[in-house]
Amino acid sequence: MHIGNKTSEGLGPGEELEDLQRCGLKIIQSSDTFRFGIDSVLLAHFAPLRKGDRVLDLGTGNGVLPLLLAGIGEPGLIHGLEIQARLVDMARRSVALNGLNHLITIIEGDLCFPPPSLVAGGYDLVISNPPYLEAGGKVSLQMEVAIARHEILCTLADVLGTGAQMLRNRGRMALIHRPGRLVDLMTIMRSEGLEPKTLRFIHPTLKGKPTMVMVVGVKGARPHLNILPPLAIYDGVGNYSPEVLAYYNEQAPME
Amino acid sequence: MHIGNKTSEGLGPGEELEDLQRCGLKIIQSSDTFRFGIDSVLLAHFAPLRKGDRVLDLGTGNGVLPLLLAGIGEPGLIHGLEIQARLVDMARRSVALNGLNHLITIIEGDLCFPPPSLVAGGYDLVISNPPYLEAGGKVSLQMEVAIARHEILCTLADVLGTGAQMLRNRGRMALIHRPGRLVDLMTIMRSEGLEPKTLRFIHPTLKGKPTMVMVVGVKGARPHLNILPPLAIYDGVGNYSPEVLAYYNEQAPME
Repeated sequence: MHIGNKTSEGLGPGEELEDLQRCGLKIIQSSDTFRFGIDSVLLAHFAPLRKGDRVLDLGTGNGVLPLLLAGIGEPGLIHGLEIQARLVDMARRSVALNGLNHLITIIEGDLCFPPPSLVAGGYDLVISNPPYLEAGGKVSLQMEVAIARHEILCTLADVLGTGAQMLRNRGRMALIHRPGRLVDLMTIMRSEGLEPKTLRFIHPTLKGKPTMVMVVGVKGARPHLNILPPLAIYDGVGNYSPEVLAYYNEQAPME
Repeated sequence: MHIGNKTSEGLGPGEELEDLQRCGLKIIQSSDTFRFGIDSVLLAHFAPLRKGDRVLDLGTGNGVLPLLLAGIGEPGLIHGLEIQARLVDMARRSVALNGLNHLITIIEGDLCFPPPSLVAGGYDLVISNPPYLEAGGKVSLQMEVAIARHEILCTLADVLGTGAQMLRNRGRMALIHRPGRLVDLMTIMRSEGLEPKTLRFIHPTLKGKPTMVMVVGVKGARPHLNILPPLAIYDGVGNYSPEVLAYYNEQAPME
């Protein structure tokens, strides 16, 4: 569904409406800004969401993580913080389109200097799919894509520092990142008082290296890391693995 | 081969001679002190040994790692440091038995206070299979076994600190440990200037959690971690995986 002008669904130029394949949820995407990837889907299912949780998503982009969490569990409220005005607008329209204004609030602001509407210590769960790549090197010519992918406006340390500040004691922070940054992730989390407690590596297939890693840190917890079985995206013959298939379609059989 | 009294091979009471299944090497073991496990075999094959390397093994036990490295590669010299006099004696007899006195020297001493025969900055590769378990909790009644398994006489920080001190700049440190301690491992390595560069998880099978992790740190290197494909010990139907079989028997076909 590619729409040239704003429609009754509120789509702007270049925007598309995509099915999130979860509880009939839909999301507005745009090829020249931000499109969610499998990493958001995996993180939404990995995050330890409990009923009634006050949730904060740092760098929410087009709001994919709040929408997925609303479809997966029973959060009490979800705040999505985003610095890019165009993505804030897209995310807000997606929230409204799904009738989730009562649950999800998209806030425009800089996670390095959290706006006063975010209350320190006020969240049970903070999630983030932050920029993976360090600033410098080859950067996308499209600034909106570059900001989502590269540490231009915030670094991993900023994300973790603000996450730690926003969480209540014993609150959980769930993050996805590249395995190459695992040492940074572990050392910064510990120095911010977010003890890494659960780790899961994501592999294209189990014969290969991991390409992503997900982690849950708990504010003020004692050290001991639980590493889960590896998650394979594909089954080795070109299809999604049963676990990933189940994430993409709640009607698919769970293994 | 269970021998009650010292034989012509130099075995003492309770000692056995075991085949290392590598270049005809043999090792003296004793059920009431220290027996090597699959972790030593996996670490010996994982360690980035280069021709001519000056190698130091911290906490060498009955000398299994020096013997395996001598069979696998072409080190220039290997020093094995061990604090327990009885294990030092066993290791020395194993070295002599294999005709490796010219290559391997077993040194009695405490890795927390390295003896002067160990020269700081004098090694290319430091390896260690340290005690995995923290002191306290349920400890073996046999003190020699307890010292090998628990952090009674040295901690992970002691092992990494002495390793960093003994390595030349850009020297490599290879270690095996439990995944539960991964955050400690990463943070202490970085704080000691041993940047973790390569990580490999060991799983009983790929369907389950990892039970061990191997890491190589490089002294003074820049951050970036390479995580290798997971290593499965078993193939899922109760046999050793092809990779592990190849480690145990150099004649076995490599996959």
